[in-house]
Amino acid sequence: MANYSLKDKVIIITGASRGIGREMAIRFAKEGATIVIAAKSDKPHPKLPGTIHTVAEEVEAVDGKAIPVALDVRKEIAIKKLCDQIGEKFGRIDAVINNAGAISLTSVEKTSPARYDLMQQINSRAVYCFAHYALPYLKQSENPHILSLSPPVNLSEQWLKDYSPYSLSKYGMSILSKGIAAEFKQYGIAVNTLWPQTYIATAAIEFAVGNKEMLNYARKPSIMADAAYIVLTHPAKNYTGLWLIDEQVLKAARVTDFSRYAYNPAFEDKIKKDLFLD
Amino acid sequence: MANYSLKDKVIIITGASRGIGREMAIRFAKEGATIVIAAKSDKPHPKLPGTIHTVAEEVEAVDGKAIPVALDVRKEIAIKKLCDQIGEKFGRIDAVINNAGAISLTSVEKTSPARYDLMQQINSRAVYCFAHYALPYLKQSENPHILSLSPPVNLSEQWLKDYSPYSLSKYGMSILSKGIAAEFKQYGIAVNTLWPQTYIATAAIEFAVGNKEMLNYARKPSIMADAAYIVLTHPAKNYTGLWLIDEQVLKAARVTDFSRYAYNPAFEDKIKKDLFLD
Repeated sequence: MANYSLKDKVIIITGASRGIGREMAIRFAKEGATIVIAAKSDKPHPKLPGTIHTVAEEVEAVDGKAIPVALDVRKEIAIKKLCDQIGEKFGRIDAVINNAGAISLTSVEKTSPARYDLMQQINSRAVYCFAHYALPYLKQSENPHILSLSPPVNLSEQWLKDYSPYSLSKYGMSILSKGIAAEFKQYGIAVNTLWPQTYIATAAIEFAVGNKEMLNYARKPSIMADAAYIVLTHPAKNYTGLWLIDEQVLKAARVTDFSRYAYNPAFEDKIKKDLFLD
Repeated sequence: MANYSLKDKVIIITGASRGIGREMAIRFAKEGATIVIAAKSDKPHPKLPGTIHTVAEEVEAVDGKAIPVALDVRKEIAIKKLCDQIGEKFGRIDAVINNAGAISLTSVEKTSPARYDLMQQINSRAVYCFAHYALPYLKQSENPHILSLSPPVNLSEQWLKDYSPYSLSKYGMSILSKGIAAEFKQYGIAVNTLWPQTYIATAAIEFAVGNKEMLNYARKPSIMADAAYIVLTHPAKNYTGLWLIDEQVLKAARVTDFSRYAYNPAFEDKIKKDLFLD
């Protein structure tokens, strides 16, 4: 079956003010998509680069269309409003990328309720909220996709012992995605997850998982953007309910040279496998 | 290794005003335990029988000690207060039974955010909250247990397609329990889950899963109370991280006659397997 182009597709990307979300915004914009850049950073963050407005400029610089929207994905009313506005303006929503994330690698003993709630709400609950509120507009797309950035569910003790609140919040995204895939199959809407095989050079690796030096052991966010592009151009009807890994998606698309994705070419052989992958 | 008695053990049971929680309260009270009956029903519920006070009377009628406490398990401050009060009064908490539950077998399309939140908060979040706040007092017990009423994680599409919000909330209890078991092993605290092999004759089956007639296809709550009694008397140090099924726990304890657990003896051969079990 022929693959679908992203030309004129309307794609919502959460957490798109930096990192993987920003990279996807620019990648899809190059294909002619309209990108709804939905993130919390309306004004510059004290430590982190990028706002919805700087990414909108980058999207427009590659001739894409950008709609920057300040959004806290914990607010279901704001999600409903966003879906209604975009859906009514364009008559449809073609894709939702649940990329916004919160991470704290802390144990149950050390995690406060506020931190626990933050992770569950930004990670798993937002997947539910977007599926619930975008549904009427996804139904109007010719090739609708929901893609969430979360791992295959790995129940081995190693990934639960030290930070089960975070693990649950990410596994929750994948469990919901599998359920929503089955539920939305009747509407021809694809629902998948995508997770990197390796560390990706983003603020999460630099500040939560490791430190600046750790970036050497990572790949560039562009590998996730390239993999997501391939996912979104697959026919939605028969490419759904999958827990995907970036490297596998690219290999299936006959990519063989992964060296260009190394963040630091001198460390290419030492790139580290990501969390949740044995 | 010798098993532990429940005599003088201090056991918190959530949702203990009716159903399985009430049955456990009475069962453990018969062994001489002090039961903290923690449930929302301080006053009679319009449709459902039982309050924390009626169960306190039943506990005292079998010579147990009862501490009725009105508790909404969504309120972390109330959980902290309860754990501190009981822990300081007795110098320890011996067991926490996460029995309180919310159920709505509705799809992502049909589930409102309020209903979604209710299930995640009462089911999975309460497991985190009790582990977080009871920990200092569980450390003081000679045989500490946390037991949560949730199923083995079953990722087959059948259990996710039609009501993934509920499934996630219950799987979340089991995922957290496995993580907390690994995390609390250093403290000798057992963390397990228990799920019935069959429908159990409670309000959940009568009002959410089925109807009054469905009770005929169920077992009595006493099977879960008997199984939980066996779990709590196991040495905590080497009986942890398990996703248990009532029938298997009883069989391992050499119970062979399950007919006495049938809700309606005339339907004994037609008892239905519970949700999440293939």
